[in-house]
Amino acid sequence: MAGEFELIGRHFTWPVPAGVLGVGDDCALLPVSPGHRLAVTTDLLIEGRHFFADADPESLGHKALAVNVSDLGAMGARPLGCVLGLSLPQADDIWLEKFARGFRALAEAVGCPLVGGDTTRSVNGVVISVTAMGEVPIDAALTRSAAQDGDDIWVTGTLGGAHVALQLLQGHHGEHLGLLETLRPLLERPLPPVRFGASLAGLAHAAIDISDGLLQDLGHIVKASNCAADIEYPLLPVLPALDGLDASIVQPALLSGGDVYQLCFTAAPVARSRIEALACEHSVRVTRVGRIRTGVGINVLASPLPLSSDGCAGFDHFA
Amino acid sequence: MAGEFELIGRHFTWPVPAGVLGVGDDCALLPVSPGHRLAVTTDLLIEGRHFFADADPESLGHKALAVNVSDLGAMGARPLGCVLGLSLPQADDIWLEKFARGFRALAEAVGCPLVGGDTTRSVNGVVISVTAMGEVPIDAALTRSAAQDGDDIWVTGTLGGAHVALQLLQGHHGEHLGLLETLRPLLERPLPPVRFGASLAGLAHAAIDISDGLLQDLGHIVKASNCAADIEYPLLPVLPALDGLDASIVQPALLSGGDVYQLCFTAAPVARSRIEALACEHSVRVTRVGRIRTGVGINVLASPLPLSSDGCAGFDHFA
Repeated sequence: MAGEFELIGRHFTWPVPAGVLGVGDDCALLPVSPGHRLAVTTDLLIEGRHFFADADPESLGHKALAVNVSDLGAMGARPLGCVLGLSLPQADDIWLEKFARGFRALAEAVGCPLVGGDTTRSVNGVVISVTAMGEVPIDAALTRSAAQDGDDIWVTGTLGGAHVALQLLQGHHGEHLGLLETLRPLLERPLPPVRFGASLAGLAHAAIDISDGLLQDLGHIVKASNCAADIEYPLLPVLPALDGLDASIVQPALLSGGDVYQLCFTAAPVARSRIEALACEHSVRVTRVGRIRTGVGINVLASPLPLSSDGCAGFDHFA
Repeated sequence: MAGEFELIGRHFTWPVPAGVLGVGDDCALLPVSPGHRLAVTTDLLIEGRHFFADADPESLGHKALAVNVSDLGAMGARPLGCVLGLSLPQADDIWLEKFARGFRALAEAVGCPLVGGDTTRSVNGVVISVTAMGEVPIDAALTRSAAQDGDDIWVTGTLGGAHVALQLLQGHHGEHLGLLETLRPLLERPLPPVRFGASLAGLAHAAIDISDGLLQDLGHIVKASNCAADIEYPLLPVLPALDGLDASIVQPALLSGGDVYQLCFTAAPVARSRIEALACEHSVRVTRVGRIRTGVGINVLASPLPLSSDGCAGFDHFA
C-alpha cells in the first residue's frame, strides 16, 4: 500500500556505513564514539524564500546539505549522518533524481550519509528540511564564545565570489557578466571545509561558518567571547577572479558578502604550524587575517574605502 | 541586527539540562551515554496537508513533537533532545506563544528538550519540521524486524478514540457528536508512552508506534520479521467512551484507525510479569492482544464483522 510519496523516499535510500541503521524503521540508529558529544544543526529551506521554483535541482540538493554540514565543521564536529524532510507539490521523477544526485554527491564527499527522512506532498511549493548530526570530542568543540585575547583570526578558502555571483544574477555590474560562469558554483555549490573543521577540534578556539558575511559572523564570535578583533584588509583572501574589479564592488563582497560557507576561526599563535599542516593535509587554503584583542567590536585596518559608506552590514553594529 | 524571525527563535529558547549546549551556536551539543547508539527521527508537517490554518496552535505544537517522540519510544530510545524548523507567513506573537506552550509542555513531560532550530518567513502557509534524537543501548533497540515466533503481541493505551474523533470532525456519525469533546484530545494531543517504550529496550523484541492503524503498522513488523500474527479481536483495548457504539464504527476504528501514537510491541511470554511491572511503574495501560507465529500475514480472530468488508486498510495486503 506504499503511496507515491513513500516510493519517493526510496530514491533516497542509499547504502549506509556499517553500524548504521538507515531508512526503514521508526528511527535511524547511529554510533557515537565514546568521549564525544553529539552535535546537531537544522535548516529549513522554502521555495520563494530561499530559492525559486526554477532553481537547478542538483544544485539545490547540494546546497541544502552544504549549509548544514558547514555548521558541523564550524563546531569542529565530524559528520555522522543527516535526515531529510522533503515536501513537493508533485512527484517529478526527473527533478527528484537530480536533487538526490546533488545531495548524495556532497553527502559522500563529506562523509555524512543520509539515514532517514520524510517525504510528503505539499500544497504550495517545495520545502526542504535538513538536520545534520556529527560528533566532537568532549570539551573540544569550537564554540563562538571560545576566542581568546591574542588569538590569530583565520579564514579558509577565498572571499567575495558568492556575493558577486549573486549581484550578477540580480542584474548588477552588467559589465562583469562574463565572470558569472566562474563565480556561480561558489554561490550554488559551496564546498564547506567540514573535515578540516573537524580536525581543528581541540586545537582552534572559536569558529563560525561565514553565511551572513565576515564582519557579521566574526561579530558573533567577538560578542560571545567578550573581545574585539582587528582585521587587516590587505590580508583578506580575495578570489583571484575578482582581481582588478573596483574596490566599490570587492570591499563589500569581502567584508559583508554572505553564502560563503567557509570558516572563520581563532587559534593561539603557537598553533600556526599545526594549522597549516592540517590545511595542507585537507587541501584547504587558510589565511591569517587579523587578531583577537581585548575590547569591543571589529576594526578593519587599511580598507580601500571608508567603512561607514560601503554598506558593510554588521560593522557599525559592533564598532 | 537580529531580524524579526531571529527574534521569534527566542520564544523557543528555554533552559536546557546540564551538559547540553542549546540554541545560539553553530550546532547544539548533546551528551550520548557510553554504550548507546543515537536514535533519530524527523517529520515535516505542512499547512493544508497535515493541518489547517485554523488549527489550535497549542495542540499543533504538542502534536508536532508527539509524532516524533512517539518514534523514539517505538525504538526503545530515551529522548535526548529535539530541533524545530518553523516557517511562518508572518510573526504572529499570540499564535507563537500558544504553539510554543504546547510544544514545551510535551517536551518537558517526556524529557525531550528543544536544543536548536531555524525560524524563517514562509511564502505560503505554516511549515513545521521536527527532528527528535534519543539514545538506546547498543543491541537493545526495538526494531521492526525483531519479532520472534511465540512472542506475545502487546498494545499500550486504548484504541479507536482518535479515529472516531476524526470521523466526527469530518461530519460522520452525527448521532454521536456528543462524544467529540471526550475524543478530540486523543486526536489532537496524543501522549505517546515514550519513557515506557525506552524501558522496554532489551526486554521487548519488535515495536512500532500505531500511526496508520494497528493492522497496517503490525503489518510492518510481521513483514520485516518474516512472521505472521494472530490478533484476538475481543482482547483489543477499546476506549471505554466507545462502548455501545455499533461494530460498524468500532471495528474499523480499532483495526485501522490511525493517529493513535500508542505502541504495538512483541515480547517473549517469559517477559510478561516484567512488562506489567514496568507498565505499572510508568502508569501505562498494556494489553496482550495476540501472538506471533510462523507464516505470513495477520489473522484477526473473532471479529464481529467480516474483515473483507470493513475497510481495514492493510489487512488484505498481508493476509
